[in-house]
Amino acid sequence: MNLLLLEPVEVSADGVSLMSGARARHLRDVLRVQPGHSVRIGLIDGALGTGIVLSLGDGTVRLHCTFEAAIPARPSVDLLLALPRPKVVRRLWAQVAALGVGQIILTNAERVERNYFDTHVLEPEFYRPLLVEGLQQARDTRIPVVSIHRRLKVLVEDDLDDLFPRGARLVAHPGSDTTFAAALGETAASQSGEQARALLAVGPEGGWNDFELQLLHAHGFRTVGMGARTLRSDTACVALLALLHGVR
Amino acid sequence: MNLLLLEPVEVSADGVSLMSGARARHLRDVLRVQPGHSVRIGLIDGALGTGIVLSLGDGTVRLHCTFEAAIPARPSVDLLLALPRPKVVRRLWAQVAALGVGQIILTNAERVERNYFDTHVLEPEFYRPLLVEGLQQARDTRIPVVSIHRRLKVLVEDDLDDLFPRGARLVAHPGSDTTFAAALGETAASQSGEQARALLAVGPEGGWNDFELQLLHAHGFRTVGMGARTLRSDTACVALLALLHGVR
Repeated sequence: MNLLLLEPVEVSADGVSLMSGARARHLRDVLRVQPGHSVRIGLIDGALGTGIVLSLGDGTVRLHCTFEAAIPARPSVDLLLALPRPKVVRRLWAQVAALGVGQIILTNAERVERNYFDTHVLEPEFYRPLLVEGLQQARDTRIPVVSIHRRLKVLVEDDLDDLFPRGARLVAHPGSDTTFAAALGETAASQSGEQARALLAVGPEGGWNDFELQLLHAHGFRTVGMGARTLRSDTACVALLALLHGVR
Repeated sequence: MNLLLLEPVEVSADGVSLMSGARARHLRDVLRVQPGHSVRIGLIDGALGTGIVLSLGDGTVRLHCTFEAAIPARPSVDLLLALPRPKVVRRLWAQVAALGVGQIILTNAERVERNYFDTHVLEPEFYRPLLVEGLQQARDTRIPVVSIHRRLKVLVEDDLDDLFPRGARLVAHPGSDTTFAAALGETAASQSGEQARALLAVGPEGGWNDFELQLLHAHGFRTVGMGARTLRSDTACVALLALLHGVR
């Protein structure tokens, strides 16, 4: 944990916050804080700041919190992901948040099994702590906005212009040799002035089918790839997000 | 599984191989092969080829194998990794093999706990099947060469010139803004003609200490980074290997 994130309701009007549970244990047992020590803190979806340890109690740590004026910018990359199997989704939450995405749009596709949607790993109570874990690792405060869509066609045709009104739309496809730099260059040329955000669509194990690729292309997505090697969904997500961040 | 990998001893002189166990189950239950069907195959550290299904037995599949003349090139990237905790190492084997590395050099560092070395996930019997799984995912045959080193100083001062005699040496460090392209450009300028391979050193959770960074720099490593976000070891490995492959 490189940053201690707090919910806004956890800080009183005079800037005092009482930590308990896992965060207090981390402060006491890993960081070994004592009164007067300072720790890096942040408000979820708010500013970064500094916490001064006021006192240690029985399993608790009392902090005095001050925050910077500016709030970190939301990451400029969004992820549209064909829902992987639950075990993979569980592994991805923290990693995707650490890499930095503004929103995570989960969708169905032909090669997504229907029962993948019926899992507790898609419940906010399950994934929000993992997103926070990823933000604390990467020292960010901006928690990704998550939405779940059971019909790709409805998502792309009806909802996507609201979710992602402006910016470059990219779809990753195994075997493509088009780099992010090349695809973004083309998109920038065709959409000058609307280059602020990028949306990356990553398909299921086995890839998007032809209909899905055509649907995405018809709605402004350009194909990008990493060459010949086909990667597992979770490896592909991390690798592709790193590459996309690398050219922005 | 996008490729079925065979050990050379599993193919008889007349090109017949009898699959059993997990690979036979995959052929029967996932690919649903029948006699006459062809499947993509490869020899570990050998050529790619085609297997024609001759017959299905009780839990077995008999293939006739033919192989291409050329053997795929070994990936031109090597990884030097401060040993992560066993749970993370277990997750990394297949992912690193899928991304493509010629060798995996595991090492100690100050922020590596000593007991991380005493784990079955570092036994070839444990990790080799995971490396093969990654190769089968990425359709490669070249299995990474693994070596394990308990003293970073001895590794870097005495062994590294044999393990990695020529090429660009890079060390990833959180917070650095030097891109791979920039670091490789500088290295290429100073080592013209010896640019064939690249070795990427990735530190432990918490980073290399100052002594370790100096040691690496004194032995030709240049710092690269991904900017401000600090990532978990496994996320960092995947992201950094993707970026390094992306500029080669």
